[in-house]
Amino acid sequence: MKPISGGITAVPGFLASGIHCGIKNIRALDLALIFSNEPCTAAGLFTTNQISAAPVRLTQGHLKSGRLQAIVANSGNANTCTGPRGETIARKMAEMAGRQLGISSALVAVASTGVIGEPPPLKALQSGIPQAVKALRSKGSRHAARAIMTTDRRPKEVALRVNVGGRIVTLGGIAKGSGMIHPNMATMLAFVTTDVSVKPSLLRQMLSIAADRSFNMITVDGATSTNDMLICLANGKAGNPDLNKSPEAMANFQEALDTVCITLAKEIARDGEGATKFIEIIVRHAGSFKQAKAIAMNVAQSNLVKTAFFGEDANWGRIMAAIGAAGVVVNPKRIHLFFDRVRLVENGVGLGPVAERRATKVLKKKSFTLTIDLNMGGESATAWTCDLSYDYIKINASYRS
Amino acid sequence: MKPISGGITAVPGFLASGIHCGIKNIRALDLALIFSNEPCTAAGLFTTNQISAAPVRLTQGHLKSGRLQAIVANSGNANTCTGPRGETIARKMAEMAGRQLGISSALVAVASTGVIGEPPPLKALQSGIPQAVKALRSKGSRHAARAIMTTDRRPKEVALRVNVGGRIVTLGGIAKGSGMIHPNMATMLAFVTTDVSVKPSLLRQMLSIAADRSFNMITVDGATSTNDMLICLANGKAGNPDLNKSPEAMANFQEALDTVCITLAKEIARDGEGATKFIEIIVRHAGSFKQAKAIAMNVAQSNLVKTAFFGEDANWGRIMAAIGAAGVVVNPKRIHLFFDRVRLVENGVGLGPVAERRATKVLKKKSFTLTIDLNMGGESATAWTCDLSYDYIKINASYRS
Repeated sequence: MKPISGGITAVPGFLASGIHCGIKNIRALDLALIFSNEPCTAAGLFTTNQISAAPVRLTQGHLKSGRLQAIVANSGNANTCTGPRGETIARKMAEMAGRQLGISSALVAVASTGVIGEPPPLKALQSGIPQAVKALRSKGSRHAARAIMTTDRRPKEVALRVNVGGRIVTLGGIAKGSGMIHPNMATMLAFVTTDVSVKPSLLRQMLSIAADRSFNMITVDGATSTNDMLICLANGKAGNPDLNKSPEAMANFQEALDTVCITLAKEIARDGEGATKFIEIIVRHAGSFKQAKAIAMNVAQSNLVKTAFFGEDANWGRIMAAIGAAGVVVNPKRIHLFFDRVRLVENGVGLGPVAERRATKVLKKKSFTLTIDLNMGGESATAWTCDLSYDYIKINASYRS
Repeated sequence: MKPISGGITAVPGFLASGIHCGIKNIRALDLALIFSNEPCTAAGLFTTNQISAAPVRLTQGHLKSGRLQAIVANSGNANTCTGPRGETIARKMAEMAGRQLGISSALVAVASTGVIGEPPPLKALQSGIPQAVKALRSKGSRHAARAIMTTDRRPKEVALRVNVGGRIVTLGGIAKGSGMIHPNMATMLAFVTTDVSVKPSLLRQMLSIAADRSFNMITVDGATSTNDMLICLANGKAGNPDLNKSPEAMANFQEALDTVCITLAKEIARDGEGATKFIEIIVRHAGSFKQAKAIAMNVAQSNLVKTAFFGEDANWGRIMAAIGAAGVVVNPKRIHLFFDRVRLVENGVGLGPVAERRATKVLKKKSFTLTIDLNMGGESATAWTCDLSYDYIKINASYRS
């Protein structure tokens, strides 16, 4: 497995673009287009929020066929809680893109992200979509990655090559997300391209596994968005053998897909609104993955733990309190805590001022690992989060103004 | 039902005190004592956090008899994750108080609140407990209320009189709590005194009902503490008839107990760390109380909703997103939202700029109500919360330093 540059357009057969069409008031990119020269096998995962955006519901319908050829995505407006008007606009986005690209609108996925409650401006999209089609490039990934950003500070891209049954398969991905990050089944917006040859049902299964190890293991603020969407397009050009017939090839592709998704998910947590630190939380020796995940995510989303990280305070009591409140039966007397390699708590009790001073040094780093050893079983889980700073409040107290 | 002054010592037969014994570095009260002239019927509710404090476990043991006569409570140190040493100190606190008061240590409840991870200083308690006994007064409620404060900005007291079967019953309460507030079965520390005559099993049942309507309906930061404790002492002096034989008397006392607990719970939410606003969240026409509560509490604990309140931004999209993420099946097209009496969302769709301007005026108030009408069934629930401000970060990034 080899990391390469180029994002989603590193994969042969894919074009992308990102333009400003006028949905955002500031002159930033706000419309992205991803296009495959040929129809792709496609799979998607979507928010579990009961209140989902119009484009989420539309794209879920289009994905029933297991085939897609393009994704049109806008930022600046989530097209959520927008009633029949919002549904019409989502449908029109697919139709306009389909017409301009010369493909059926049923092969177009639509995604939106931004403020909830107002339908996106149709006029801006009517002039923007043809522009985005004209701007399609074989090196357009970065533009598309920028065009789906909202409060993100940087675009999020990844690409890699992997050997799948003797053939080189390329995978690329872009994602956006910074606030309202606590995905459940998927995350904010993430689009993955690949030239692997795969059947829709298998791709869906593998994408679901990858999401469980990546986007479902991050949190910025515990809020599950109404617009979460992860889509993977596979054009089959790599000519690899049938994955169902080669366990090794399947494992290699799964690992590559996991890596793409984990890389993007970590980038989202690292770029969390107001984040000054990135924290990996490993829960070891749990009774089950589910329990390990529950604890990792409860610690990852604790405002008190996150503000202590911001304050560079080795306040392990808050970590213990968050472990205990995760709804999992634990034995406090067997729990060890580590910051990177510094052991701070042994058998549920703090190791005193020397250990705290050493731990505080770790906390001063931009990025570190908190390991929670439950000493109960053989399962583990890893989650990623960021600290909670003044800037989170600043960004979110004034997001719409 | 008539509100009166005097807190827990408004009830005949109860004394209280609050002193500085040296657990806190600053010269603030840090040791509270509550004493009844006679043994009381007693009931308690405790944190559901798997990692509970030593005093929580000790007091749970003492309460098995259904009898208590005193409560000794310290602030500045939670006595949590303190191993065998912490257990010894909790036991010694009960023993010292019992000896000084001339009662069995089994009749003494112990409560602690403050920083997790270090045992409280035994020396300070050894000199402090006799001092606290000497300081006991029939008007000592306010001192006790102050002595259990941590990051609280003000003491929290309540007292009222109610007719129970032809007899005047008095109830008083004090509470502390400001951060790590997301009680589950109980809250931070809350102590209720009364002269009602009641059996332990019935008192426990009625206290549990009151907690479900009060302390279990507030959140400051979604964090369930390791030290939550609600204790009610009833000395029976009012001479009321058997509550089990008079439904009306029982209903009157339940209502008074609810009122005491709700008043204290609302004070805790109002005094939430860094809070600039107090918000009542009413969910109406839900399918069940459980569903109404799940939605009310999910909105109440959403960082995004709370920062929007701080920013006085009528960002109803975040409220809809939090409703949808509560794990309850809802029909977005039937949901109405109101700030006080201003209708902002009708059938899941925003009512536009005029309504938003009117809602923004409500948001500028220090205290307002958000009503969520689900239009699904006949049940409702009310939760209380505060906004999320820069000061929450400030307090929690530097709490231990």
